[in-house]
Amino acid sequence: MDMHSPDTAVSSSPLGEEETPWLSAKEQQFWRAHLEVAKLLDYQLGRELQPHNLASNDYEILVVLSESPDRRMRMTDLATATLQSKSRLSHQITRMESAGLVLRQDCPGDRRGLYAHLTELGWETMQKVAPDHVRSVRHHFIDRLSPEQIDAMYAALAPIAEHLRALRGRA
Amino acid sequence: MDMHSPDTAVSSSPLGEEETPWLSAKEQQFWRAHLEVAKLLDYQLGRELQPHNLASNDYEILVVLSESPDRRMRMTDLATATLQSKSRLSHQITRMESAGLVLRQDCPGDRRGLYAHLTELGWETMQKVAPDHVRSVRHHFIDRLSPEQIDAMYAALAPIAEHLRALRGRA
Repeated sequence: MDMHSPDTAVSSSPLGEEETPWLSAKEQQFWRAHLEVAKLLDYQLGRELQPHNLASNDYEILVVLSESPDRRMRMTDLATATLQSKSRLSHQITRMESAGLVLRQDCPGDRRGLYAHLTELGWETMQKVAPDHVRSVRHHFIDRLSPEQIDAMYAALAPIAEHLRALRGRA
Repeated sequence: MDMHSPDTAVSSSPLGEEETPWLSAKEQQFWRAHLEVAKLLDYQLGRELQPHNLASNDYEILVVLSESPDRRMRMTDLATATLQSKSRLSHQITRMESAGLVLRQDCPGDRRGLYAHLTELGWETMQKVAPDHVRSVRHHFIDRLSPEQIDAMYAALAPIAEHLRALRGRA
């Protein structure tokens, strides 16, 4: 995203609003590297989950459910936790239900709707896939950074994550 | 993704393969912060594009086409550039075509198929949206980092981006 080119329309910014400076060459370079790593890493990790017949979204669902009490979560909360629309999550859960990894059930005594449960097969699948997934995460990302870089990047990212979580909570 | 819990199945890794150590607490913390920032930032930037009737994927298409010679690109190359499947890109382009932002056309004398062209409206839309988008990127990300952090993170991410691009090229 070329946001430092001088010919783009700075002058067309809304009346009266403060002008925001374009990204400097360094900022631009960094911003593109961030986007590229986020996207390509997600793509590559997804590819390496394919032999397990899982999409990266599926793996995330398995992890989130496995960390929830009783390995289940209300569908609406699961949508929030995974930042998906309810309709998109619903499609995904239907797919995962056919594969036997999760089960949708009403909760007796709770009118607020449907829960997604991790099945025994879902749990076993996650246990089986996790070592390969860690290997992928290390090989393509973590092991390419020094401990100092990891510390520094965590210090930089943690407050940003907090800011974005707070915004998201308000939405 | 809890990848340092001692109870997950390290012992079930495939026979004969070297065991990959789980992420340390610090690595785990950093990995989650990375995932969270990537995902929440994409979500927030997408939300702030909504008043312009654009999804973040749409904005990306506008940027990629605007930077291409003659503001057009072969559909298959556009799918590669934006890391999407051809069928998903095709749906997206259909939507953007209805909005008048792009146009699909055969290229005379080129049998290798369909091109997506940026329309005049698409170009103007990008010019109009870009200042707001830069403001969002600064507010939620870039301006929350010091110049030293930006330099350090770029130095860390650039080789990873290169590694992932090379893998992707081979795929």
